Amino acid sequence: MNTPSGAPTFRLEAFSDGVFAIAITLLVLEIRVPGPGIHTAKDLWSALGDKWPNYVGYALSFLVIGVMWINHHALFEYIKRVNRPLLVANLLLLMGVGFLPFPTAVLAEHLADPSTRSAATAFYGATLVFTSMTFNLTWWIGRKERSLLGSELPQRGLRTITIRYAVALACYAAATGIAFINVWISLSVHLVLALWNGFSERAGRDS
Amino acid sequence: MNTPSGAPTFRLEAFSDGVFAIAITLLVLEIRVPGPGIHTAKDLWSALGDKWPNYVGYALSFLVIGVMWINHHALFEYIKRVNRPLLVANLLLLMGVGFLPFPTAVLAEHLADPSTRSAATAFYGATLVFTSMTFNLTWWIGRKERSLLGSELPQRGLRTITIRYAVALACYAAATGIAFINVWISLSVHLVLALWNGFSERAGRDS
Amino acid sequence: MNTPSGAPTFRLEAFSDGVFAIAITLLVLEIRVPGPGIHTAKDLWSALGDKWPNYVGYALSFLVIGVMWINHHALFEYIKRVNRPLLVANLLLLMGVGFLPFPTAVLAEHLADPSTRSAATAFYGATLVFTSMTFNLTWWIGRKERSLLGSELPQRGLRTITIRYAVALACYAAATGIAFINVWISLSVHLVLALWNGFSERAGRDS
Amino acid sequence: MNTPSGAPTFRLEAFSDGVFAIAITLLVLEIRVPGPGIHTAKDLWSALGDKWPNYVGYALSFLVIGVMWINHHALFEYIKRVNRPLLVANLLLLMGVGFLPFPTAVLAEHLADPSTRSAATAFYGATLVFTSMTFNLTWWIGRKERSLLGSELPQRGLRTITIRYAVALACYAAATGIAFINVWISLSVHLVLALWNGFSERAGRDS
Repeated sequence: MNTPSGAPTFRLEAFSDGVFAIAITLLVLEIRVPGPGIHTAKDLWSALGDKWPNYVGYALSFLVIGVMWINHHALFEYIKRVNRPLLVANLLLLMGVGFLPFPTAVLAEHLADPSTRSAATAFYGATLVFTSMTFNLTWWIGRKERSLLGSELPQRGLRTITIRYAVALACYAAATGIAFINVWISLSVHLVLALWNGFSERAGRDS
Repeated sequence: MNTPSGAPTFRLEAFSDGVFAIAITLLVLEIRVPGPGIHTAKDLWSALGDKWPNYVGYALSFLVIGVMWINHHALFEYIKRVNRPLLVANLLLLMGVGFLPFPTAVLAEHLADPSTRSAATAFYGATLVFTSMTFNLTWWIGRKERSLLGSELPQRGLRTITIRYAVALACYAAATGIAFINVWISLSVHLVLALWNGFSERAGRDS
Repeated sequence: MNTPSGAPTFRLEAFSDGVFAIAITLLVLEIRVPGPGIHTAKDLWSALGDKWPNYVGYALSFLVIGVMWINHHALFEYIKRVNRPLLVANLLLLMGVGFLPFPTAVLAEHLADPSTRSAATAFYGATLVFTSMTFNLTWWIGRKERSLLGSELPQRGLRTITIRYAVALACYAAATGIAFINVWISLSVHLVLALWNGFSERAGRDS
Repeated sequence: MNTPSGAPTFRLEAFSDGVFAIAITLLVLEIRVPGPGIHTAKDLWSALGDKWPNYVGYALSFLVIGVMWINHHALFEYIKRVNRPLLVANLLLLMGVGFLPFPTAVLAEHLADPSTRSAATAFYGATLVFTSMTFNLTWWIGRKERSLLGSELPQRGLRTITIRYAVALACYAAATGIAFINVWISLSVHLVLALWNGFSERAGRDS
């Protein structure tokens, strides 16, 4: 009765892994080497120190993308087969992930400037809101067409995941709004959210 | 009688997946961070808004490459073994895919300029025409040497794929020509083509 | 009694392989093409020769990252399952690996300048110290929760790996300190360390 | 008597595939978008046309790296297990492959300039000589320790591969020398060599 529809997820996972791995590794390219006007060791240390917004952006986005990869991984332990709408939703998800090096670079460029850093942080948060929406979309498509899911998943597990994804989206949206009040609180929310998602065990296992 | 010739496609698919995943993720590198002349939040939002041609180019090429990956995936559900001509044809295909970040950047640079955007859009379209030709070539090689195909594929399925690939090539060529009349129609054709290819189920299954 | 906890390592290894492969290949992007002020073959050869610090940086970091990949590979012949803390530790490890193109570029930019090269070499070494610490952390997490390890590993093998990882960390720290005395000795230590790690057989097999 | 030594090649092949796929896709990044001084469609077409050395470099290196990947693939149909020397030799091989985007960019920058293109072409060829040497080295290590090879390989097949690799190295060296006489002949030799390697079936099968 539960005949599988759609194709297996193997190559989709491999392709997605590739995009996650590349996006996370491209982050470093946005950190420019201190220019030719450096003539003493002290100048170099100082110039390397001045790049702290780049290190903050690199570390934060590395964690964010890394934890998104972990969650993507977890998602496809439930979704066992893919149809075309799911492939396209996953493509939108990867579009958000692949875009992240750009808002990260914008954030790094403006984080030290009090007059523009709120805008840069909000732009960064908006990208995460988009990505979180595509995670929700991918999950909804998978949940709706039950035959795409593995058979062992209990009803309560499904609900738990749905709630967690919705909560994450709300937190990303909140953090984006908070950027206009205080960028450090906004970025801390992103960090805590990444660590919470990274360390908590999978929903399906808990239930 | 149908002894397999050629090697299995596993590593070819993994290598191709890699090129698709990298090309799609490199697209973001063409979006430059707004320069140092920005001093207010309003300036930054305005500068980020002025980058709309970059976002259009990023989103369009992400979809185009993503859907090409989906179709490449589908193609190698039929082609089960590879010989050297097919490897080289696939290499030409990847050469087109890997080149796309360049015309995308050209498009993004010129899309806001009425006097050069037709040329930029035609150049973009020409790259897709080339890539579509290599898709056709790969398929023709696979179809000709029947022993490379999986055994379960019906004659009608073969014909359906052949026709679809030829139609896609004609559409890409038409969109390239239309670029000289109206770039928005040209780009819309590319978008619709990507969505049509992305959402329609595989030909072999339909027949 | 030894029921497996955590998930299998397959996708973690694939993702990590991706980050290693991308970081190692991005190294070349930091070598800029000699500019437009070159008009004779002699000028070009001279300009290409002047880039020797880039070649040193490229070759050294290629070996360092490559050998780290070999060791990561070896590590996950022991660690057979992953839990969330191990995933996050591995993410920190990849954060160090993915960062390496930046200190490599800093090193290449300053290696020919006697007044700044000590600082650049120390910065480079500090990144390796961080990465080595994350290797130790990943191993400690794996070793502590015995159920993550493969069952065939003898107690003595565990101890050997623990010692080797601690020794490597001490050597990286020493090399970083030596950078302030003599950069060539410091870089030689990094090179010897990479070759020693690269050529010596796995600890688990030796015991 | 033929107990396998060394580890299986799976992850080595995946890692190598990654480096090949990334190096081949990074080639496009060296093609810069025509600058802001372009105001008419004619100017843009002309600027895009002036980039022909970039297209030549892109196409040639794409074929060269792609065919090296095919040959690497073929090599590891014979070499079934890896030991540490072979891992390090393979790392040197990847170091040559990963370096290729740089000489390709140098070639593209100077190919239109009669006074510097010989040097640029020789530099390009020298990189291929290095890479070919590492291919030979990898094969020699594999051949020497017979237990690393698959058991089905006949003695004559071994000899055929050894000869082919040596011939390829000699051709690369010849092409590099010819660059000082005529760059077009030199580049044609590289092209023909790539096509010959790409289209000819594997040595082991022929014998």
